[in-house]
Amino acid sequence: MLLLLWENRPFLMHKLKYTGINEAGNWVRSLTQESHKAKEFSYCPYSMSCYVENTCFSLGLCAERTAINKAMSEGYQKFKVILCSDLEDRVIAPCGACRQVMREFGDMPVFMTKVDGSYTTMTLEELLPLAWGTEYLKK
Amino acid sequence: MLLLLWENRPFLMHKLKYTGINEAGNWVRSLTQESHKAKEFSYCPYSMSCYVENTCFSLGLCAERTAINKAMSEGYQKFKVILCSDLEDRVIAPCGACRQVMREFGDMPVFMTKVDGSYTTMTLEELLPLAWGTEYLKK
Amino acid sequence: MLLLLWENRPFLMHKLKYTGINEAGNWVRSLTQESHKAKEFSYCPYSMSCYVENTCFSLGLCAERTAINKAMSEGYQKFKVILCSDLEDRVIAPCGACRQVMREFGDMPVFMTKVDGSYTTMTLEELLPLAWGTEYLKK
Amino acid sequence: MLLLLWENRPFLMHKLKYTGINEAGNWVRSLTQESHKAKEFSYCPYSMSCYVENTCFSLGLCAERTAINKAMSEGYQKFKVILCSDLEDRVIAPCGACRQVMREFGDMPVFMTKVDGSYTTMTLEELLPLAWGTEYLKK
Repeated sequence: MLLLLWENRPFLMHKLKYTGINEAGNWVRSLTQESHKAKEFSYCPYSMSCYVENTCFSLGLCAERTAINKAMSEGYQKFKVILCSDLEDRVIAPCGACRQVMREFGDMPVFMTKVDGSYTTMTLEELLPLAWGTEYLKK
Repeated sequence: MLLLLWENRPFLMHKLKYTGINEAGNWVRSLTQESHKAKEFSYCPYSMSCYVENTCFSLGLCAERTAINKAMSEGYQKFKVILCSDLEDRVIAPCGACRQVMREFGDMPVFMTKVDGSYTTMTLEELLPLAWGTEYLKK
Repeated sequence: MLLLLWENRPFLMHKLKYTGINEAGNWVRSLTQESHKAKEFSYCPYSMSCYVENTCFSLGLCAERTAINKAMSEGYQKFKVILCSDLEDRVIAPCGACRQVMREFGDMPVFMTKVDGSYTTMTLEELLPLAWGTEYLKK
Repeated sequence: MLLLLWENRPFLMHKLKYTGINEAGNWVRSLTQESHKAKEFSYCPYSMSCYVENTCFSLGLCAERTAINKAMSEGYQKFKVILCSDLEDRVIAPCGACRQVMREFGDMPVFMTKVDGSYTTMTLEELLPLAWGTEYLKK
């Protein structure tokens, strides 16, 4: 079982048991607490818009894609839930490029949490309707 | 007045008068006909998934972003309507990264046309709800 | 015959006759003058690091790649010379990602000009030695 | 002390002692052996050109950038040496975009190894001369 957590430090939760949507409040709270500890690892000398920035801005990478690429490089290719936490009192949804990368792994619920642990949830299908997918590749 | 057209050749329509959603059928038909003439300009030796491909795949670029970057390099920064035409009997919506780039210019209707000129329309807000935007940049 | 010019407005020169390296001084001077007229078209509300920027920084695009993608969308796939002009008293070379995209089209001389029209020249092979290329794609 | 290893699985070496260029043969051999064990983690259903691919090709990411982003997300921002191993009898150098991302961290030696452990070495400055850097950002 794997959860992605980011906005601060992208990381992977193996220990947390995913007990289904109905008990979301519990594990969202745990994850949000973890995420608040981990802010110091981002590298954003320029803008604070990207998780990993670069002098050549187009080579930076959002936290969400950093988390997913990292998970894949460790052998994980199945995700049940994605959680985006923000350290302020607002809901932040992933950018369009990150939604596209997430969608590679199918539809799943995305939790977007505020600093107080309250959250909004939408499915990837709702966040990226009519998603471009492998079925469109001309072979 | 500017329309973007792609899936084949990204280009810019200056002459066509945008007469509003109610008369969409007319100008969608004109645009779709134009787009079918222009397929030969894409550079896709590898996969046909991207409009401008590169040996290093992550440096390729979709037709939609090629069209928008091209328009901007010619001084256009306001778009009223976006049209994605496909040469087959299906509706193709832009990828998430392209939706994000379009959203930079505000909300607008996106027309997605099939080879026969029939079309589906959604707003950018519907295609990318809760879009990440400039209001989130930490200053 | 095609020349790419940028740092300001990426554009394409059809009229200028490329008379060889030995007469570079002449056409570099013409191109540099043209480029100084065209600065107003870039879209960089955030950083001035990219030619076409986006709220999601990783979706921005350098001037060099904008110019090449634009040329390709108009049907050009062969380039004899690339020229990067800077409006200040310094030489600017393209970023690594842009060098990779240029290298897709083979080796060629790259002229890097200062505001006064003086220039440095290197080949793409010198700017990106041991370049990753199509010969490495596993088929 | 940190070494990046890829072409297969990007990963981070903490245990290996970097004993300087003069003893490169020893730790290059160790790293190359490690890298051969780890090929199964790449996600390349489409082309095998990228380490982490996506249906939308421009959203894929090379192994080198995956490794660097992963290291940064774990808090590492200083690298002494970079090693690119290939599983075949050839030397592969990083693409231009990856060289640019590496260059963010200064100059350093890059080792490029063949399947038999023999290697070529160049500095980043040699692989990306006149590199675009933070000194060019207009503030």
